[in-house]
Amino acid sequence: MTAQPDQTGDSNGRIIISVDAMGGDAGPSAVVAGIAKSAEKNPDIGFILHGPEDTLKPLVARRRILEGRVAFRDCSDVVTMDDKPSQVVRHGKKTSMWSTLESVKKGEASGAVSCGNTGALMALSMMRLRKLPGVNRPAIAILWPSLNPQAFNVMLDVGADVRADAKDLLQYALMGASYARNGLELARPRVGLLNVGTEEHKGRTELKEAHTLIAEFADTANFEFVGFVEGSDIPGNAADVIVTDGFTGNVAIKTGEGTASLVGELLKQAFKYSWLSQLASVLAITSLQRLKKRIDPRRVNGGVFLGLNGTVIKSHGGADATGVSAAVKLAFTLAQSGFSEKLAARVASIEELKQDAATVASPESQKQEGR
Amino acid sequence: MTAQPDQTGDSNGRIIISVDAMGGDAGPSAVVAGIAKSAEKNPDIGFILHGPEDTLKPLVARRRILEGRVAFRDCSDVVTMDDKPSQVVRHGKKTSMWSTLESVKKGEASGAVSCGNTGALMALSMMRLRKLPGVNRPAIAILWPSLNPQAFNVMLDVGADVRADAKDLLQYALMGASYARNGLELARPRVGLLNVGTEEHKGRTELKEAHTLIAEFADTANFEFVGFVEGSDIPGNAADVIVTDGFTGNVAIKTGEGTASLVGELLKQAFKYSWLSQLASVLAITSLQRLKKRIDPRRVNGGVFLGLNGTVIKSHGGADATGVSAAVKLAFTLAQSGFSEKLAARVASIEELKQDAATVASPESQKQEGR
Repeated sequence: MTAQPDQTGDSNGRIIISVDAMGGDAGPSAVVAGIAKSAEKNPDIGFILHGPEDTLKPLVARRRILEGRVAFRDCSDVVTMDDKPSQVVRHGKKTSMWSTLESVKKGEASGAVSCGNTGALMALSMMRLRKLPGVNRPAIAILWPSLNPQAFNVMLDVGADVRADAKDLLQYALMGASYARNGLELARPRVGLLNVGTEEHKGRTELKEAHTLIAEFADTANFEFVGFVEGSDIPGNAADVIVTDGFTGNVAIKTGEGTASLVGELLKQAFKYSWLSQLASVLAITSLQRLKKRIDPRRVNGGVFLGLNGTVIKSHGGADATGVSAAVKLAFTLAQSGFSEKLAARVASIEELKQDAATVASPESQKQEGR
Repeated sequence: MTAQPDQTGDSNGRIIISVDAMGGDAGPSAVVAGIAKSAEKNPDIGFILHGPEDTLKPLVARRRILEGRVAFRDCSDVVTMDDKPSQVVRHGKKTSMWSTLESVKKGEASGAVSCGNTGALMALSMMRLRKLPGVNRPAIAILWPSLNPQAFNVMLDVGADVRADAKDLLQYALMGASYARNGLELARPRVGLLNVGTEEHKGRTELKEAHTLIAEFADTANFEFVGFVEGSDIPGNAADVIVTDGFTGNVAIKTGEGTASLVGELLKQAFKYSWLSQLASVLAITSLQRLKKRIDPRRVNGGVFLGLNGTVIKSHGGADATGVSAAVKLAFTLAQSGFSEKLAARVASIEELKQDAATVASPESQKQEGR
């Protein structure tokens, strides 16, 4: 494949996704199986695949659907789960992860997908793609099963940075709302700020400041601010976008995942209890599978890095073909909606407004703008 | 009832629990039903009940099991869920909550139980019972369903204070380990410090400091320090005591509760899907009830306030008779084991050791003491 005038498409008008074949727990064969799955469902998608060509070419050759839809970038090195981000940034030039981001940087691809080491992927993404002007801390956003009509909430940050001040939280609100519009097709998403209670006097100082800031920009950025929300609202229906710092977000999603597996494990034990309960479990099996599918993390696989010049999707390290395919689909959807450009424009315009507000607004007028 | 030489027992040698009859969502009748349940199961328990006598006496008279086992303290006022803690501290002298704590302060009762406003209860407890010498921030500890052999982990702080520095986290570790020994009968509990990853270089500064401190005092305080744990370990089997600040702890438990109800709700929907799945649900009902019982929050109802001169149990605001009875049982168990006195002695001895360490220990010897 040669570079085309339209940087995001190949000669067949396909949208090209840059995929790191290495670094996932299941190895390159799961990644190739995943992109084959995506190729089958979606004729408008093409790939640049990064990793050792000797390994990848035979895997791709076995999938007829991928014929003519995959370009290769040969790389000898792999980022492992144990590699420290700082090491990878300094010495990772020959890794498949580095190469994967390079294709987005050069404009050969509209988005990157990697199953590798999260910390290294974020550090490399920040170095190679750079932060959007006006963004202090990029964030990782995920989709979380919820009682919402769209069945998922957006939650950010879930671990890009362990700290966030009030301005960072405002950025997260803007970026999360933009993501919900483009990823979940919500025209006017409801944004909530995670706290220990919904009363306005509760919580840490930076949260009270962020409450004021986010309220102020809600109308301009076209989202509804529902104020403080609690942990129980993450899987609930009070908001579509849950804003928090990376420390709290990371603990919350892992607690949620852990609780879901505890319930699953205990359900299994409960059904093994007696002869009758075993019979019941056989009859209940399709119902349980329906439930499992509804909350299957593989179906919504993909943390999106927000705040960079380009779309990067972090797939789960243990992703199988279904998981990789879901991450690729997300990259495609965001590319198709022009998300990256829209987000950049949104952040830039708010940045201007913030500077204006800082110059001209009196406390009185700020109060009126808020809610 | 008159005051006895043995301050924790009445003339029949019963252990006396001070119970706030007011402030719960279900009203005083649920509280009276709860203490009746406890009285039935446990002949060694007696009560002091706080609230308007006109309301309480008829409720108690209807339960024959409570005959001669309840003393009353008449109070006209009630702390509501909307009352601000600062207001209650200033003007709450006539409330049932205040009176409930007073019985512990005077030594009439060995522990207090209230279903009322958490913030107000903590503020009043700190003012009336005072913090233990050496404790900077008291904590609220709860039991959380887990895959452990004992079926529950202790987690603290879950919301007494939104901030905690390294020394506070050390105190939480000591208090949590002591609680696990006396409440869960674990001779040498495993203590974990909640973080975003288990590697020692991860997380916030105060967590790295706390890691060093807790490791240093693990042997002296007779617990095993397992280092950093993640959100998924809260319902897991990596530790028996999970230490974190009140902000993170509060978000984590509410996320866990929310996720469990989401799964429950979706399970219900899954079973309603078709005629066959409805049939399956009928057959599965005992298995599901077994599961529900296993993770029923009412069975482990009761956040314990740690770090005060006296035991205070915060029952869930929405507790029914089963919930109140569980909270009373916890207060009884802790009183019987002499928990309050043991904890005070433990905190005091570690406080001395800390001062010794600060005076004599070189960095080298500290390293050897740690792990």
